[in-house]
Amino acid sequence: MSRFWSGIVHNLQPYVPGEQPKAANLVKLNTNENPYGPSPKALEAIRLATSDTLRLYPDPNAQALKQAIADYNQLDVSQIFVGNGSDEVLAHIFHALFQHEAPLLFPDITYSFYPVYSQLYQIEYKSIALTDDFSINIDDYKQANSGIIFPNPNAPTGRLLALSDIETLLKFNVDSVVVIDEAYIDFGGESAVTLVNQYPNLLVIQTLSKSRSLAGIRLGYAMGHADLIDGLVRVKDSFNSYPIDSLAISAGVASFADQNYFEQTCTKVMTSREHVVKELNELGFELIPSAANFVFARHPQFDAAELADGLRKQGVIVRHFSQDRVRQYLRITIGTTEENQQLLAVLDCLI
Amino acid sequence: MSRFWSGIVHNLQPYVPGEQPKAANLVKLNTNENPYGPSPKALEAIRLATSDTLRLYPDPNAQALKQAIADYNQLDVSQIFVGNGSDEVLAHIFHALFQHEAPLLFPDITYSFYPVYSQLYQIEYKSIALTDDFSINIDDYKQANSGIIFPNPNAPTGRLLALSDIETLLKFNVDSVVVIDEAYIDFGGESAVTLVNQYPNLLVIQTLSKSRSLAGIRLGYAMGHADLIDGLVRVKDSFNSYPIDSLAISAGVASFADQNYFEQTCTKVMTSREHVVKELNELGFELIPSAANFVFARHPQFDAAELADGLRKQGVIVRHFSQDRVRQYLRITIGTTEENQQLLAVLDCLI
Repeated sequence: MSRFWSGIVHNLQPYVPGEQPKAANLVKLNTNENPYGPSPKALEAIRLATSDTLRLYPDPNAQALKQAIADYNQLDVSQIFVGNGSDEVLAHIFHALFQHEAPLLFPDITYSFYPVYSQLYQIEYKSIALTDDFSINIDDYKQANSGIIFPNPNAPTGRLLALSDIETLLKFNVDSVVVIDEAYIDFGGESAVTLVNQYPNLLVIQTLSKSRSLAGIRLGYAMGHADLIDGLVRVKDSFNSYPIDSLAISAGVASFADQNYFEQTCTKVMTSREHVVKELNELGFELIPSAANFVFARHPQFDAAELADGLRKQGVIVRHFSQDRVRQYLRITIGTTEENQQLLAVLDCLI
Repeated sequence: MSRFWSGIVHNLQPYVPGEQPKAANLVKLNTNENPYGPSPKALEAIRLATSDTLRLYPDPNAQALKQAIADYNQLDVSQIFVGNGSDEVLAHIFHALFQHEAPLLFPDITYSFYPVYSQLYQIEYKSIALTDDFSINIDDYKQANSGIIFPNPNAPTGRLLALSDIETLLKFNVDSVVVIDEAYIDFGGESAVTLVNQYPNLLVIQTLSKSRSLAGIRLGYAMGHADLIDGLVRVKDSFNSYPIDSLAISAGVASFADQNYFEQTCTKVMTSREHVVKELNELGFELIPSAANFVFARHPQFDAAELADGLRKQGVIVRHFSQDRVRQYLRITIGTTEENQQLLAVLDCLI
């Protein structure tokens, strides 16, 4: 507390990210990172860009990166916005597009940064309960709103909403923006990006942190109608002219150029996920169907917080949320084959 | 324009950064970049960090970087805030510390991002005219305010305010924060960081973009009382958990460890500046005394915009501002010896 703070600061309840432990030898399955490294071509691009030219500012528009994303998604560059991680992209979206009369709508069980952004930008919101099986029922979103946002697949459940449901929602909700936060879409979901040219009220968010293994680089992007992108650019250019550094631009461009590596690693993660799901089922866990690089699991006989503690004592870190409806669940990132085996072996001892 | 935009977006007049031209062979003296590359140790640190570990999120607190900055400035790590360039740091400062009843105060001739941040966060401001010789008269700031901010040396003038004046202002202005934006302090100024432990209302901003030649990496920081830093952290953690990427953390730490290189390159820039000042004086230019890595110059017989155009036609880019009081000035970054010679040779032809 300080008398020097602006009024809003006193009431903020900042987001708490998953732990980034410094100890080595931990099996780190708590923040949904990709178990495989970035494309070797992305690493090579960073090395090439590591030169005296870093004395220069980056391109404030990150044009090369936007073009790579546009080409990859068959969109125009005017339909692309890039940010310093998708969290920054989301922050600008809340600021630029959600400050209207009616409340913003998002699920009760979802990415826990949404209420934090809402506080920061003083946006009234209404959380809409997922159904009992943690599904989004789009009928529940058919009400006055300043915008709708949810991840697809949802986090931390991993459950996917069908593209046809998203399209129904877009058709109904023509007066405000629908944001589909697709951080995990490449692990088995179908992206709403194919709807961007039809629906001027759609914004699709993706990141290079998960399926492209570049969490350490901080790159996220939004795709939507040029007018929505223009609103984001206006806020970004009133906040930070150069949010994307030169190395990130190079790494991002190279990542989109290496389709083979991308497909191979995504496939490996999905194959591992099916194996982990099967094994967890055999251990008696109940799982929400996951289209992400993590699973959301509960065991009818064991307390989730205690399981998380037991795992940690054996060097395996998973994420546990204390929110009411999900406090008996563990969110477990899919790791390498060896990491998954360690996870399952420790769980086998614990239960 | 879009009906989907939040109300504030319609009225924003975003900051326009200096041009980052794509053409090679230009003598680029328009955005105050360092003519010398980053410390070779910083480049080596980036190469070492370019590995599969980029799949992991960076340390959300960038603790290693904060520690390096704290040690360098003989402060505690709790007194350090880091951001994705000092522009991001400034944005968070405006949001976290300047939203109060009275207007924010800054000079009429100053960093043109300040009014943009004020618009973004709906902060009323009052611009205080510099004296006729473009000095800050601290008596003009002795009035009710929600905060005071100016660069020292000021931009785009390059003129330095004495530390004793800053201390007088801090003593007078105990009820709101005084932010000294020291982007250019290492080129001959005396930093206010030595006052941080005495004045809980002082925040000092620095950047690695100028004196440390890392504009392409995006790193800036604030130093001040732990309570002020805590306010910034609360806003940052409500905006983006991981603004500093892993490569930037490594580069920053290595840069602060290479004091020799830092001193050598700063000295070279200052020596070149004195040479450029002397030569410009001989060409009939009038200059504001500069403690920065640029000079601010006007020629009594030649129109500044026309000189800027003439320079550009010969491949030399400098910055010209169209604002009333300074439209007869050119802001010219100090380049390498060769670049400065080219600048002077072209000017010699033009006038």
